[in-house]
Amino acid sequence: MNRPPTIKDVAERAGVHAATASRALNPATRGMVNARTANRVAEAARALGYAPNSAARSLRTRTSSVAGVLVPDLRNPVFPPIVRGIEDGLRDAGYMALVGNTDGDPERERELVTAMRGRQIDGFILATSSRSAAFAADVAVPTVLVNRRTDNGGIPSVTADNAAGIHLLVRHLAELGHTRLGHVAGPRELSTGWERYRAYLDATASAGLEPVVEFADAFTETAGHAATLRLLSAHPELTAVLAGNDLIALGCYSALADLGRTVPGDVSVTGFNDMPFVDRQRPSLTTVRIPHYDLGREAARLLLERIAAPDSPAKRVVLPVELVSRDSTAPVKS
Amino acid sequence: MNRPPTIKDVAERAGVHAATASRALNPATRGMVNARTANRVAEAARALGYAPNSAARSLRTRTSSVAGVLVPDLRNPVFPPIVRGIEDGLRDAGYMALVGNTDGDPERERELVTAMRGRQIDGFILATSSRSAAFAADVAVPTVLVNRRTDNGGIPSVTADNAAGIHLLVRHLAELGHTRLGHVAGPRELSTGWERYRAYLDATASAGLEPVVEFADAFTETAGHAATLRLLSAHPELTAVLAGNDLIALGCYSALADLGRTVPGDVSVTGFNDMPFVDRQRPSLTTVRIPHYDLGREAARLLLERIAAPDSPAKRVVLPVELVSRDSTAPVKS
Repeated sequence: MNRPPTIKDVAERAGVHAATASRALNPATRGMVNARTANRVAEAARALGYAPNSAARSLRTRTSSVAGVLVPDLRNPVFPPIVRGIEDGLRDAGYMALVGNTDGDPERERELVTAMRGRQIDGFILATSSRSAAFAADVAVPTVLVNRRTDNGGIPSVTADNAAGIHLLVRHLAELGHTRLGHVAGPRELSTGWERYRAYLDATASAGLEPVVEFADAFTETAGHAATLRLLSAHPELTAVLAGNDLIALGCYSALADLGRTVPGDVSVTGFNDMPFVDRQRPSLTTVRIPHYDLGREAARLLLERIAAPDSPAKRVVLPVELVSRDSTAPVKS
Repeated sequence: MNRPPTIKDVAERAGVHAATASRALNPATRGMVNARTANRVAEAARALGYAPNSAARSLRTRTSSVAGVLVPDLRNPVFPPIVRGIEDGLRDAGYMALVGNTDGDPERERELVTAMRGRQIDGFILATSSRSAAFAADVAVPTVLVNRRTDNGGIPSVTADNAAGIHLLVRHLAELGHTRLGHVAGPRELSTGWERYRAYLDATASAGLEPVVEFADAFTETAGHAATLRLLSAHPELTAVLAGNDLIALGCYSALADLGRTVPGDVSVTGFNDMPFVDRQRPSLTTVRIPHYDLGREAARLLLERIAAPDSPAKRVVLPVELVSRDSTAPVKS
């Protein structure tokens, strides 16, 4: 009833033998069939919506031209443009993306990886890995990390230049006269959180400033709100807060409002990522722009390289970032 | 080298015959193996990351437990929560989602559908369909539309109650004293644009108001900007604009700013969807909340029903919406 059309259906419609239809549709053997016949077969295939049976080919070659893509949660605005970039990058090579959400739960990640491997996928692109990521390294298919990386560098990765971004923000705030800059850092176990935290320590040290840090439990507005309240109650003298990412920065906004302090009048706030619509926040958010879409495309490219040559050395690609100065930062009050 | 582990590898590790390992891992035959052996096999499978070969099963049963999900562009903030809902809904039944972006291009949609069918997927969930959608109806596998529907109702669909949403907005504006309400409608060929436009005509008629409409070429900020300029230059007397969706409403904001008119001081503006972060716009946007995530979950449920019973009647599920009143609407100036 809902049976997909087979090569026999195509042959019948085109009025040729199945073997002829098969040869006509295979680029490698098309030359063996005369051009008029080949066109008639192609037309019949198109009309019937015939697609070569990838499941059969998959079983024969043990590949499926499908990559598994795992993200923590597609609803976090950082991920849709990354996934879109991955999809476009894969498609150029005839690959498609199976997408799964892990909610950052290693058990859920493991289940998804197992389920995807059972479907004979050709590789993984993971935006979910923690810094240790013992698990991902065990996966015996080509794997690339995007936006995250592991400490030991054993898995190829594509990330934004987190350290450079934080240095840009600290310099920006220092130029505005701020000397008491606090950091609401992202989770320590994620490379994004950790790299930005380390860069904050380096940048404040080289500017001769005292580091003041509070860690948020997650890269979320709620966690950012709670951590900002802890940071400001311990250090009411701060005039600027660097948030670990844009969502944490939105949590800073609401926490500062709760404390009756204005942004940027009393306290300047910065984010990280330049996710969609932070230019429209009240106030619009000063942040660091990471090239989301390009991270995805580059990860796809790296995975395809890896599938072609699984034993090549694990490359790390780091893409440049830029400071986007908006209304949430202002000169320190004199 | 990167060969996935086979049942033989599992059997070897567990020290049993392959047939025993196979029986131990199949829930239907596990009872034929003694419990200690079954546990040893399960442990070996877990340690090796063994997954039953779905490609082989797929060829045998011609199903893959994979659904194809097509959206216009994952970067439009409406779609990530819908896709997340779909993924969660499918996963409960052991299904996964292959995701593709069409950019609203029918040719690209056709290519993706063909490529996905070649991978023996079990069904489609399309957020891309136009009202006519002759193509989607031809797809010989179970298909469900989400957020969109076709005029003839031949394909099951899950949509938000677009008409009720527009009626809520018109009543809200009328209660604020507005009598000159314009509509920047979405594209006519999409059910979302068309249903909201028709509801605007009905709602203004029953309130005894004159309808004034301009169509945007797309559901984008840019198209909304251009259409608002056309609408206001022809009808400078308007005191309120209902936008076809939130992105069009953001285009209204910038067009009105270009014309030197304030929101909501001079003109009230409403959106549709309540996409993430419109509560944070300047001014925060009055809109209609559609249950994005639930649309996705419901679409997954409907597809699974459809796969189980492909010839059952094509259901249409319409989920309720609610008015979210914020700062972009205010009483009309007296």
